[in-house]
Amino acid sequence: MGRIHFGGDYNPEHWPEEVRAEDIRLMKEAGVSMVTAGIFSWALVEPAPDEYDFDWFGRVLDDLHGAGIRVCLATMTASPPPWLTERHPEVLPQDADGVRRWPGSRQHFCPSSPVYRERAVRLVTELATRYGTHPALDSWHIGNEYGCSNPRCYCDVSAADFRRWLRERYGSVEALNAAWATTFWSQRYGTFEQVLPPRTAPTHPNPAQVLDYARFCDDALLRCYLAEKEALRRITPDVPVTTNHMPMHKPVDPYSWAVHEDVQALDFYQDPYDPETHLGAALAFDVTRSAGGGRPWMLMEQAPSAVNWRARNSPKPPGTMRLWSWQAVAQGADAVLYFQWRATPGGAEKFHSAMVPHAGTDTRIFREVSALGRELGTVPQLAGARPRPEVALLADWHSWWALEQGSHPSGDLDFAETLRRHHRPFFEAGVECDVVPPDRDLSAYRLVVVPNLYLMSTETGARLTEFVRAGGHLLVSYFTGISDDCDRVHLGGYPAPLREVLGLRVEEFWPLAEGQSLPLTGALAGSGDLWSEAIDLEGAEAVSVFGAGELAGRPALTRHAYGDGVAWYAGTGSRVLPGLPAGVQATVRGGADGRFLFLLNHGTSTATVTLPEPMPALAGDGADPGAGPVSSVDLPARGVVVLQS
Amino acid sequence: MGRIHFGGDYNPEHWPEEVRAEDIRLMKEAGVSMVTAGIFSWALVEPAPDEYDFDWFGRVLDDLHGAGIRVCLATMTASPPPWLTERHPEVLPQDADGVRRWPGSRQHFCPSSPVYRERAVRLVTELATRYGTHPALDSWHIGNEYGCSNPRCYCDVSAADFRRWLRERYGSVEALNAAWATTFWSQRYGTFEQVLPPRTAPTHPNPAQVLDYARFCDDALLRCYLAEKEALRRITPDVPVTTNHMPMHKPVDPYSWAVHEDVQALDFYQDPYDPETHLGAALAFDVTRSAGGGRPWMLMEQAPSAVNWRARNSPKPPGTMRLWSWQAVAQGADAVLYFQWRATPGGAEKFHSAMVPHAGTDTRIFREVSALGRELGTVPQLAGARPRPEVALLADWHSWWALEQGSHPSGDLDFAETLRRHHRPFFEAGVECDVVPPDRDLSAYRLVVVPNLYLMSTETGARLTEFVRAGGHLLVSYFTGISDDCDRVHLGGYPAPLREVLGLRVEEFWPLAEGQSLPLTGALAGSGDLWSEAIDLEGAEAVSVFGAGELAGRPALTRHAYGDGVAWYAGTGSRVLPGLPAGVQATVRGGADGRFLFLLNHGTSTATVTLPEPMPALAGDGADPGAGPVSSVDLPARGVVVLQS
Amino acid sequence: MGRIHFGGDYNPEHWPEEVRAEDIRLMKEAGVSMVTAGIFSWALVEPAPDEYDFDWFGRVLDDLHGAGIRVCLATMTASPPPWLTERHPEVLPQDADGVRRWPGSRQHFCPSSPVYRERAVRLVTELATRYGTHPALDSWHIGNEYGCSNPRCYCDVSAADFRRWLRERYGSVEALNAAWATTFWSQRYGTFEQVLPPRTAPTHPNPAQVLDYARFCDDALLRCYLAEKEALRRITPDVPVTTNHMPMHKPVDPYSWAVHEDVQALDFYQDPYDPETHLGAALAFDVTRSAGGGRPWMLMEQAPSAVNWRARNSPKPPGTMRLWSWQAVAQGADAVLYFQWRATPGGAEKFHSAMVPHAGTDTRIFREVSALGRELGTVPQLAGARPRPEVALLADWHSWWALEQGSHPSGDLDFAETLRRHHRPFFEAGVECDVVPPDRDLSAYRLVVVPNLYLMSTETGARLTEFVRAGGHLLVSYFTGISDDCDRVHLGGYPAPLREVLGLRVEEFWPLAEGQSLPLTGALAGSGDLWSEAIDLEGAEAVSVFGAGELAGRPALTRHAYGDGVAWYAGTGSRVLPGLPAGVQATVRGGADGRFLFLLNHGTSTATVTLPEPMPALAGDGADPGAGPVSSVDLPARGVVVLQS
Repeated sequence: MGRIHFGGDYNPEHWPEEVRAEDIRLMKEAGVSMVTAGIFSWALVEPAPDEYDFDWFGRVLDDLHGAGIRVCLATMTASPPPWLTERHPEVLPQDADGVRRWPGSRQHFCPSSPVYRERAVRLVTELATRYGTHPALDSWHIGNEYGCSNPRCYCDVSAADFRRWLRERYGSVEALNAAWATTFWSQRYGTFEQVLPPRTAPTHPNPAQVLDYARFCDDALLRCYLAEKEALRRITPDVPVTTNHMPMHKPVDPYSWAVHEDVQALDFYQDPYDPETHLGAALAFDVTRSAGGGRPWMLMEQAPSAVNWRARNSPKPPGTMRLWSWQAVAQGADAVLYFQWRATPGGAEKFHSAMVPHAGTDTRIFREVSALGRELGTVPQLAGARPRPEVALLADWHSWWALEQGSHPSGDLDFAETLRRHHRPFFEAGVECDVVPPDRDLSAYRLVVVPNLYLMSTETGARLTEFVRAGGHLLVSYFTGISDDCDRVHLGGYPAPLREVLGLRVEEFWPLAEGQSLPLTGALAGSGDLWSEAIDLEGAEAVSVFGAGELAGRPALTRHAYGDGVAWYAGTGSRVLPGLPAGVQATVRGGADGRFLFLLNHGTSTATVTLPEPMPALAGDGADPGAGPVSSVDLPARGVVVLQS
Repeated sequence: MGRIHFGGDYNPEHWPEEVRAEDIRLMKEAGVSMVTAGIFSWALVEPAPDEYDFDWFGRVLDDLHGAGIRVCLATMTASPPPWLTERHPEVLPQDADGVRRWPGSRQHFCPSSPVYRERAVRLVTELATRYGTHPALDSWHIGNEYGCSNPRCYCDVSAADFRRWLRERYGSVEALNAAWATTFWSQRYGTFEQVLPPRTAPTHPNPAQVLDYARFCDDALLRCYLAEKEALRRITPDVPVTTNHMPMHKPVDPYSWAVHEDVQALDFYQDPYDPETHLGAALAFDVTRSAGGGRPWMLMEQAPSAVNWRARNSPKPPGTMRLWSWQAVAQGADAVLYFQWRATPGGAEKFHSAMVPHAGTDTRIFREVSALGRELGTVPQLAGARPRPEVALLADWHSWWALEQGSHPSGDLDFAETLRRHHRPFFEAGVECDVVPPDRDLSAYRLVVVPNLYLMSTETGARLTEFVRAGGHLLVSYFTGISDDCDRVHLGGYPAPLREVLGLRVEEFWPLAEGQSLPLTGALAGSGDLWSEAIDLEGAEAVSVFGAGELAGRPALTRHAYGDGVAWYAGTGSRVLPGLPAGVQATVRGGADGRFLFLLNHGTSTATVTLPEPMPALAGDGADPGAGPVSSVDLPARGVVVLQS
Repeated sequence: MGRIHFGGDYNPEHWPEEVRAEDIRLMKEAGVSMVTAGIFSWALVEPAPDEYDFDWFGRVLDDLHGAGIRVCLATMTASPPPWLTERHPEVLPQDADGVRRWPGSRQHFCPSSPVYRERAVRLVTELATRYGTHPALDSWHIGNEYGCSNPRCYCDVSAADFRRWLRERYGSVEALNAAWATTFWSQRYGTFEQVLPPRTAPTHPNPAQVLDYARFCDDALLRCYLAEKEALRRITPDVPVTTNHMPMHKPVDPYSWAVHEDVQALDFYQDPYDPETHLGAALAFDVTRSAGGGRPWMLMEQAPSAVNWRARNSPKPPGTMRLWSWQAVAQGADAVLYFQWRATPGGAEKFHSAMVPHAGTDTRIFREVSALGRELGTVPQLAGARPRPEVALLADWHSWWALEQGSHPSGDLDFAETLRRHHRPFFEAGVECDVVPPDRDLSAYRLVVVPNLYLMSTETGARLTEFVRAGGHLLVSYFTGISDDCDRVHLGGYPAPLREVLGLRVEEFWPLAEGQSLPLTGALAGSGDLWSEAIDLEGAEAVSVFGAGELAGRPALTRHAYGDGVAWYAGTGSRVLPGLPAGVQATVRGGADGRFLFLLNHGTSTATVTLPEPMPALAGDGADPGAGPVSSVDLPARGVVVLQS
């Protein structure tokens, strides 16, 4: 992108046009280089079907261009206007009980609705035709936070679309019956016409049906995105497209979407009342960067200070907004944007902080925002530089969808939390990680971590086995490799696809009682929680054993030398590696302009970091680029320093 | 009313007619002077459309009159008969999900239903025609607990009525769009026909739409009441009308109803397991009296002992029913009634206590009831006497409706609880309070307290400013004066309408984390909870500052001398005044017969109260009206004494 | 049954036919003598309406017969096939909000549906015609776990059926109005057509309507069962029929069903994480045996190890599956079966343990199952032997349905828990109990315990009074004898039907606050919880009095010598008898082959039991039938010994 872009959502339609001159002036003052625009403008630009009113919007783009501000132009389709659902109430989504979701907020559309898609494509075509060559146009921002509020619809339109999807996937109803194990509970279908979404049933639903419905719903959202993208590509084949994902958003698989995006974009809203909010951010940033294959990404939305949708919304204490913005840059972002530019007096998000608050510019928020904008403008050489991790964590949304269904050995397994627990020690140790799907090429990594990958194909098992044989280190945790892609258990002793490489067999799962933990003894002592298993060793050695309970004395953590590598297995929940105490993040990005070491102090007291070699400080607290290399850095609380290494 | 009336709901239809003679005899024994009657008799008196069977009811009225018992005659419309909803199922209300509420309990009608209203008015007309001149008739009791179980309906009938209401309120759809800030999230309406109630939406609804729906729903209930009142007035223009409100009932604004009521009536059900139940009662009693401009009111329903609808329903321990009844009288009630006269064997409230219990009259309950009835008969001179408070608390149901919506800085703000916290110290200090809406004349008060009045017009701000300038004392607490009547934030620094009088600016809200409290230091030390704010002083002085947290050292409580008065501000939740420890309530009512001091001991041990001057004890524990003035009073636990001062 | 049968649910349709030979071989190895089969085969055997495909099923029966394994043949009707609800969506049940329950699990049918019943009977007729004379057929297993997932339907079909049921029950709408006390809240019906199920109403429903709906729904399920039974009886009049109940399943009254069953059958799934799981089992086993008048019953389903539908599903630790199986035998079971034979790879219960686990036969589970199967094969003489209790607890599902409705003095009363608390001390003291409905002949019992029997007819009261007069001992606990069969309170002081025999009157209920307990002092000291009452003695003496609270000094436990017997009363929740500390169960079954003493150690350490006289050990830990009588037994943890006494 040529620089670290800085800016936010610009929604000038909330204000009289005369405010815009002040907006532009303040944007320059704040170092804004890019805005997103038009995200919720559909009802304004198309006040009635096929009646367009774009004049005001064109003037906005002209003024932004005049000020040298780039525009990531939204396709305006995230919230259908009142006339659409008045004319076509069947566009409204329904929940699993058949209850409609009504207009009055946003995303009140069934993702499978042909009416919605047709109207959206028509609007997008109009937009691309009008502004495809506008000089302010930097990129297209398609939709907005897909599936945030309408992730799964169960209406009859969705049902018909699901049947179409199943026909394509399975070809015959016999194949569907086999995949879904419909012999169980007398569910065998005679025709595709008999199939329904997994609406609320008297008791436990068919797990494979629920899994396929999660796939279908993600796909229905993706097809909305692709319909708009196609319309844009026809008219503006060279303008990049993106869409903003929410972090660790279960309904939307970032990996399957990534191949259709020119740049990854993420919205992340830290909770200042959560002392581990930067750890959640670290994971989401790594997922986003990894989805895009490592290329720079956009932090499209964050809050300048407080949000308005938690139970209690803390402002960001002084320095934290800057710190957390730099964290995104350290982990690969080339753009730092906010929701939104100017705080509105009305609407559902009027108490969401904005770059220009209700109280105006003589405010802490505007001062902190402007200072960061100026600071990020001083380091164009960071743009394009990438982290190069040697550790990969495997994550798989399909496995997630299958894992957290009911009727499992334990309801306590939470994939996002498990992934955080496995990611955290690396982050705290300053070891960079990618977070990749199982079908990625793993050969460049030294260590692959597989946290609770419940669904695993025999092929993935074979690839992981080969990875170890060729010298890789593999760490697998409990309840992994249990079922195939249709959620049918691999028979013959768990986890069948990995038994050879792990050198063991799991005979029975022994999920722990609520709040229970078990002591672990042996070479690696500690304690385990959530889960335990009856492990029979078949070549592996026990590194730790359970110190109490029904499995006392049986293996808890195992190690198996295999080929040229080593495979570890954890049969209980535990910290997989000790973390560093500090709270200091150390992350490296490398690019054409060199390698950059980012040091961020997430703690609340000063930390001194001794550098492995002297290096010049480019930016950040106490940095003096002209002063030459330094050999240690004093990081104040919430401080940031970027060094050239 | 000429005396302190005593009695209860009389539902003779549950019993054979021969029981009535015993009823009348026992009523005389218990000192009953007034009953309400007919509240749920619709299905009996109109067993089929327009077929009336009133004979039995006329005999009831005749017998009551014969015994000198006055009747507050219900209009019988609170629970439609089965034939009505069988013929017109569209009368049944629907929730925000579109789910119907079915017959089988009561109030199963949509308040906007023209069918319901037409049938109700027809019945009321019949009633007024038959009994408008009956000598037992004291007053009309319209409906019953409006909105208790059907406060908000979201059906299509309501939707159409809402659109009608909006057209009247706003005139044009452009005005509606401006008021509701519909630019946000693409909600701009092209026509009124596109508007719907705020049914369940995918995410946060439009706050102004929700606010207006609360107004509309209250108004729909009020129009039910007014339709009946009009029918009554046509036939019995001189018979007073009332309706019984529930205490601090959020859906129904007592102030807007009060102008249409000849006398205020309240239902209050203390929870003996709540050690602060008398504090809740104290507030509700003050609201009720204040709604009526201070005139005497009716405690229309209370329980003789236990209720049946809490999770665990404690009887009222000996003495508490008397104590709490006297509390109502002390705070301005001229009638003490119960639900209900005789305990029924069947139905949903069979385990609700009654004046005549299942076990008959050889019971503690009947003995306590009768004793109180006799006691209240001895003090007719109390009737009409009024408290004359010099302190006013402002309360505003519209602000309440806006305040407790989601998408706010904190979900912990609870207006009723906040009002209780501000009311309690005055009650405990023996300082009488009115609780009035913001548009009342405040000039007679020395102190006005404004607890968390989120919605505040610029005009109200100006009136409060003028109140202080003219010498008044004003105490404002946090998150007050934020939004206008359409819930649009007043820009330029919070709380814009009060910045001048308070001498400060609030730049950011800093709601506290769950359970968090902050020490306050300075002239008034203590602690704050729920909320904090970044306050910039602009003339005010800090009386307390935050002693910890991100705002440490910044003002928490402020004082601003302004004109001839003083304005205080509390930027956090805290006790506004220290309470007295005792548990003794001291309340004064004054009237044509003099001033009366009520002393009530809500504690569980004896309390001795030294009087400011000797005065005769008129009634209560140890009172001997003939013995002359006393200079101190020994109040037993749960004891009551009324003195003439 | 000639032996203690052993086996499980056999669902061969999940596997290729070639697996069956191994199944049969392993069944023999495991000592399987009986299987249930076909429970969820409807969609397979009738893939389209009236198109049957039974060939594979016949081969299954032939092979089982060839191996000497008896078949309890299911009628296959528990889960309708997709074609049925596709053609007749009105078969789908609805909840009280009117929300449908959709296909995708099981039991997705309205029990009142004539379409469902007609299709079920047609299938059953086909089954009986085909297999009624098959030599493998032992008995018919009708339906499966009736009402597990569709206990109450509120659809229009159910509504019409309810009205029919009410017409039959009451004859006239006047009688219905009297029974339901419809005068209350204006609910008086003019015609039966106006009556609806108790769908969600604005507030508390009519309790008698809810009670009758519970009766009706149970009856609707029973009529499904009876429709199938009739069809079977027409063709196979001599083949016994049964159906498997769930333990303490509130919607289904085991006593009213029992008269239509040739043998009682129960499903019981212990929770190994519940240290009192064997106590719950003990109660359920006694209820099941008592429902059948004491005759041997079948444990039709239990888990070999873990289940899959709790929040956390523990395997059964070594020895517990055997222990708990023997517990069923000790308490009268002549069959011990499991769900299911072989663990399936797919479907909603794939993680439910099976006799042959996913990991195959080289597993702890298969080893423990096989060992038990062999052990149970060694004691055919136990079959038919019965316990002969001298203590009866009264239980009444109708009272349960009435008791746990809202609008009662306390919401804390839980009938199943109360029954457990009253059953436990007898179980722990080794005193065998029956658990019988109030209309049973009680003359053979020495002690009758009546725990919280809220509904009680005057006739039952008279029978209990006569029982005591004739020398029986009666123990009644609180909130008993309150209402009649229509849930109308017996007037004149609680509990009217028992006041004479108990020698007391209860004037007021005083339910305790949450978590509150009260000390009891007097001859039987201790503490009471949940509930208290104001008891006036009228002949009884106080054995304990409340030691604190508003009722301090008033009776808590009373004793009344009456006629030749004694009646006790407990006005609060408390242990009615002290339990033995041990955790050792001692249960006697007697039959044609003698009397058998079962000793089971539910504790986790060894227990030594001294026998009242020397007796030979027939089976179990350390038993050597040839060694002659022993005078004491060392029971290892989770150990079992059966002795001939």
